[in-house]
Amino acid sequence: MQSNSVQRTGQILAAIHDAGDEGRRIFTRVYGDAALSTARAADERAKNGISLSALDGRVVSVKDLYDIAGEPTTAGSAVLRSAPPAKEDAVIVQRLRAAGAVIVGKTNMTEFAFSGIGINPHYGTPGNAHDATRIPGGSSSGAGVAVARGMSEISIGSDTGGSVRIPSAFNGITGFKPTQSRVPRDGAFPLSFSLDSVGPLARNVLDCAQADAIMSGRRWNALAPREVRGLRIGIPRGLLFTQTEQAVQSAFERVIDELSRSGCRISDMQLDEWCGAPFKLQEKGTLIAAEAAYIHADTLARQPDAIDPFVLARIKRGETMPAPHYVGLQRAREQLRQSLDARIADLDLLMLPTVALIAPHIDSVANPDAFNTANMLVLRNTSVFNFYDLPAMSLPINVGAAAMPVGLMVVARRNCDLDLLAMARRSRHRCRR
Amino acid sequence: MQSNSVQRTGQILAAIHDAGDEGRRIFTRVYGDAALSTARAADERAKNGISLSALDGRVVSVKDLYDIAGEPTTAGSAVLRSAPPAKEDAVIVQRLRAAGAVIVGKTNMTEFAFSGIGINPHYGTPGNAHDATRIPGGSSSGAGVAVARGMSEISIGSDTGGSVRIPSAFNGITGFKPTQSRVPRDGAFPLSFSLDSVGPLARNVLDCAQADAIMSGRRWNALAPREVRGLRIGIPRGLLFTQTEQAVQSAFERVIDELSRSGCRISDMQLDEWCGAPFKLQEKGTLIAAEAAYIHADTLARQPDAIDPFVLARIKRGETMPAPHYVGLQRAREQLRQSLDARIADLDLLMLPTVALIAPHIDSVANPDAFNTANMLVLRNTSVFNFYDLPAMSLPINVGAAAMPVGLMVVARRNCDLDLLAMARRSRHRCRR
Repeated sequence: MQSNSVQRTGQILAAIHDAGDEGRRIFTRVYGDAALSTARAADERAKNGISLSALDGRVVSVKDLYDIAGEPTTAGSAVLRSAPPAKEDAVIVQRLRAAGAVIVGKTNMTEFAFSGIGINPHYGTPGNAHDATRIPGGSSSGAGVAVARGMSEISIGSDTGGSVRIPSAFNGITGFKPTQSRVPRDGAFPLSFSLDSVGPLARNVLDCAQADAIMSGRRWNALAPREVRGLRIGIPRGLLFTQTEQAVQSAFERVIDELSRSGCRISDMQLDEWCGAPFKLQEKGTLIAAEAAYIHADTLARQPDAIDPFVLARIKRGETMPAPHYVGLQRAREQLRQSLDARIADLDLLMLPTVALIAPHIDSVANPDAFNTANMLVLRNTSVFNFYDLPAMSLPINVGAAAMPVGLMVVARRNCDLDLLAMARRSRHRCRR
Repeated sequence: MQSNSVQRTGQILAAIHDAGDEGRRIFTRVYGDAALSTARAADERAKNGISLSALDGRVVSVKDLYDIAGEPTTAGSAVLRSAPPAKEDAVIVQRLRAAGAVIVGKTNMTEFAFSGIGINPHYGTPGNAHDATRIPGGSSSGAGVAVARGMSEISIGSDTGGSVRIPSAFNGITGFKPTQSRVPRDGAFPLSFSLDSVGPLARNVLDCAQADAIMSGRRWNALAPREVRGLRIGIPRGLLFTQTEQAVQSAFERVIDELSRSGCRISDMQLDEWCGAPFKLQEKGTLIAAEAAYIHADTLARQPDAIDPFVLARIKRGETMPAPHYVGLQRAREQLRQSLDARIADLDLLMLPTVALIAPHIDSVANPDAFNTANMLVLRNTSVFNFYDLPAMSLPINVGAAAMPVGLMVVARRNCDLDLLAMARRSRHRCRR
């Protein structure tokens, strides 16, 4: 139990304020008085020995696609600036409030959560926390930068193709994408019904685990102690290791060497049949595009020019996809999911780089071709595990303070979310920056 | 425990044989020796006081869309006559065999299970059991006629829009469509992944309940005794009661009057918001058509002319549906399902006519317009409860032996399948022919 919530909230509000315009690119909205008042109540409880939860008095921000009662939910879009105010808080916001969390603000994001780069022409693009000339990663761009810059203890993001894990990797923090069904999505502006999942970004695994417990409506239990020795770890070398930058590759190999020396049973695995399938199957159109085209049908019809052209182009590809193709995608996904489950049944974890690159410079992705190429590569490794609905984390690899951050992706079997958190907490001692 | 399985199997085989060409229109395949051998084993067990299940030695047929190892599964299609033989039995066939059922044959059906009329140009159209100049109802046409004519004690059908309940109603027998997830569909040739469900047709509710227990992999327990008095029954008067033939309407009202006199609490309900939605939403294309167009994509591309033109026209409508429309249908279905669940939470049953008509004459549906009009009306009442995934039965109303049969549809809340069977068994005493 921490009794200094007011102090921490005050520091965070000051940091956001002091960042000036950049603060306004990280946060689309800041709740100063309400946050301080909530923090005071938490400190009062703590003085009286009362705690609502492990998050009581912790300073939390939420991505601007979660409803907050009385406000429009922008989802990073100019179109929704004047949307009708949400009638009630999103379920995860309700749960966080009931747990005593101090909601400090709403964080900026890629429009409609539809890219891994994190650029937003309407609300501005937050610079990477380690080098503001580089991209923050998306779509939970503000969430990643806020945690890395100490403007939020925990940020709630969403992850449809990597939107929690990519900004975590690029900004050197920890991000957790749970099994999809674990956390309710009521009151979250959707990108893809099939793939959206709700997860936290934070400075360590424990904070992620505690936020996950609250949001998934489960009782918080200390993570089970797990031995690193004997962990069965598969490395899916092949497709997902191509085009990997040297800095990423060598950081990754160093972690694997260390884990091997600590007694993990590391084995290379040939999983390209599964790693390649989502791309091959979706060449003529993706599940996300079809679902986004439904969700945004009105805007596409009435004011397409109000949408970021990079995002618009991606959504429009869904408009013309024939329904039988979509049906086939869902069917193939189900069958592939079952066969991959069987293939990895004897493993504890898969490990691979979260992203093949360190965060590119913002001006290197300015033209559409460069943007698309970078976006596809940035999303590649993470999106595979949305397709297969496996829980996954990005952990920061220790590369030294001077180098740009590199993320280690740790993937577990479906619904083994708590196991993943417990194992990540142990192996993280080898990753901490 | 019945010890005369050989005798009953022999009588059934003789009845099928004696029906000549009509027997070959009802059954696409008959297992004479294998059935008798299985029956002998059941009789042996019975003599020794051993029973594998409530279905041990019962004579069962399966619709020709369930895999039987070593044979092509035709699904009523000429295209599949030379399909590769199935590698193993469908799960429900495995379970029926393990329960000691005597599988006597495979029954004829509408091609690909895609119409409620029951006409099949490739394998012939079985005549209605009560008047062979009238349609049998579909798509489980052979299943309904076989039970009504004593050529099978229990027939396993499938129901995507009414394919168990319609032939039950038209042939004066009992049919049960469970909640979709209740019975596994592995090894069943699909029509629609979203809507297909597996259910029995039989001469009484008890036989349906026992077949359901085996197929759903549940332990058989005698149905709980239910009081008719006090049952809360809603009648969704409105849209689903329009265009109803006088014979159907008056038979239905008589049952409701009797149930009312027996102490049921009958109330008319305005549910047109839900009853109309599946049709309104699917005017521009149905879930079934989109899914069927995916399933039959190869045949549509390579030999469309080999498909019954009535069926082909229905499937082809799915080819051009845009994926976002399909996504929207699934989304709307989920939301409507939740709101209807809430609306009927205080009811035990809904009751309405299974079909608005008695079985039409075969020659009255010979031209495409007449076929489509009749097909839409025949499927109307039943298909609503596939859309909402509610368990439903058709029970024969006592209209006298001279009149064409009329079905009473009894619908329960999702997953209340056993309650439905128990309540139907009681109210059936008022319905038996």
